[in-house]
Amino acid sequence: MSLIFLIDLLGTVSFSISGVLTALKKQMDPFGIFIIAFVTAVGGGTLRDLLIDTPVFWMGDLSYLYVILGAAVLAVIFRKKLSYVRRSLFLFDTIGIALYTIIGVEKGIEAGFHPFICVGLGTMSACFGGVIRDILCNEIPIIFRKEIYATACIVGGSAYFLLIRTTLPPEIVVVIAGVIIIGIRLLAVLFKLSLPSIYSKP
Amino acid sequence: MSLIFLIDLLGTVSFSISGVLTALKKQMDPFGIFIIAFVTAVGGGTLRDLLIDTPVFWMGDLSYLYVILGAAVLAVIFRKKLSYVRRSLFLFDTIGIALYTIIGVEKGIEAGFHPFICVGLGTMSACFGGVIRDILCNEIPIIFRKEIYATACIVGGSAYFLLIRTTLPPEIVVVIAGVIIIGIRLLAVLFKLSLPSIYSKP
Amino acid sequence: MSLIFLIDLLGTVSFSISGVLTALKKQMDPFGIFIIAFVTAVGGGTLRDLLIDTPVFWMGDLSYLYVILGAAVLAVIFRKKLSYVRRSLFLFDTIGIALYTIIGVEKGIEAGFHPFICVGLGTMSACFGGVIRDILCNEIPIIFRKEIYATACIVGGSAYFLLIRTTLPPEIVVVIAGVIIIGIRLLAVLFKLSLPSIYSKP
Repeated sequence: MSLIFLIDLLGTVSFSISGVLTALKKQMDPFGIFIIAFVTAVGGGTLRDLLIDTPVFWMGDLSYLYVILGAAVLAVIFRKKLSYVRRSLFLFDTIGIALYTIIGVEKGIEAGFHPFICVGLGTMSACFGGVIRDILCNEIPIIFRKEIYATACIVGGSAYFLLIRTTLPPEIVVVIAGVIIIGIRLLAVLFKLSLPSIYSKP
Repeated sequence: MSLIFLIDLLGTVSFSISGVLTALKKQMDPFGIFIIAFVTAVGGGTLRDLLIDTPVFWMGDLSYLYVILGAAVLAVIFRKKLSYVRRSLFLFDTIGIALYTIIGVEKGIEAGFHPFICVGLGTMSACFGGVIRDILCNEIPIIFRKEIYATACIVGGSAYFLLIRTTLPPEIVVVIAGVIIIGIRLLAVLFKLSLPSIYSKP
Repeated sequence: MSLIFLIDLLGTVSFSISGVLTALKKQMDPFGIFIIAFVTAVGGGTLRDLLIDTPVFWMGDLSYLYVILGAAVLAVIFRKKLSYVRRSLFLFDTIGIALYTIIGVEKGIEAGFHPFICVGLGTMSACFGGVIRDILCNEIPIIFRKEIYATACIVGGSAYFLLIRTTLPPEIVVVIAGVIIIGIRLLAVLFKLSLPSIYSKP
């Protein structure tokens, strides 16, 4: 499990940095920057835990707080250099949402919810930190306008749900679901794919 | 109870469509449209269930999810025709908020709360889906600026609370409270009534 | 405890009035004004109670509802005279956040959380009512842009946590932590102190 925990924390780092970048654009002060980094990283999982009525994950394990605080401080200090590591950040972020999705689906399964609710909880874990970030920054959530990774989470989360009931070892199922999520997102970004537009071109 | 459940779902349809219309105005993509439809329909009840600390209603009964998804898809497809059914939608919506209010008050009573809290929970069930919809769409909630139905919910919810303790059969009490809510709202719309303004005319 | 309860209610009055003033600026109607006053006063504590998974404080004790309703009505009626009591309001507000912080830290300790989480819960109790107020009014939360009292809450909350474990009588610890929070905030306002800016001057 220590590899999964490491990936989880790398995802947390990358989500925190995305929060810092948004907060900096809004000229927030250090307190605001930290709060935005925090909700971006743990907001989706917090909403999930409140809905499931399970203890909120970051309140019992301080690793998240330390990682977010460290990532936020470093991101502020090196904010002008962040473009050099853009590619690594994108990779961490993509791996992070894959894992957040899987953790969310798994929490739903453990709590005995219907498959659709489980996939929804997984997608929420991965996507709603960014939604809360955008709301706190007074923007319409970017994920509602320009599909970035919700579809990948839904497809990958569904695959996880279906495969985890088979005889496949759980580690393999995590890898398969993760590869699906990461693959869809990479392809979407590479080929500029998006959900079909329902608006007529001007 | 099947009539009440039917009305509940009709209200859900109408709330979902109101969410779709708001999301379309903001040029959201299909994922965003679905999420806005969903929170408009179930956001108020979700907040109520979290505050009461009771299982969130739509997580255990998938009917809501299916109805919202179906309503959202149809609303997007027939979005140019929606003005033809505007009157039916308004009626469903009004009946829906009446029922949402009553369900919310009843949940408060079951949980043993003070009358004022029960009426507040009923009003929240009916009104806060729209509040969350507006926040996610980066607007000041319309219900805070131009009173639409909060007063109707408060009066009707109070009537329900008072009458349900009498010897009247519950079905009759539901009908009376419902008629009060629907009546106040229809009168308010017909005669353009609103809460007294506290701002001086320019 | 009755002195603490009195201070708590004075803080609630002052938070409600701050909510009314913000809502008036947005031309809200009476329903909107009351809701904004309400969330400003109890929003932070509500979020705290949801995260801890403890009964939400204002749902079991109607005093808060009555005080907020009374304060909101009086604030609307005497809104043009509020500048005369500006200084008293600022004092109540400052004492209020001190007490909100201490109550939040204490609730965290009772629930057995890590010191950092307890201090975070205290700060959240004092600061997040204002955050929800600003979000509902479609503004970037002021506390994220111009540090007002988060630092005071963090320092005073930490002092409370450290001292309450010593042999000092609890009353003394409350006074010390309160004086620290009130002192830092007064000094910050008097000398226009703020967190160091991370943005280069134009």
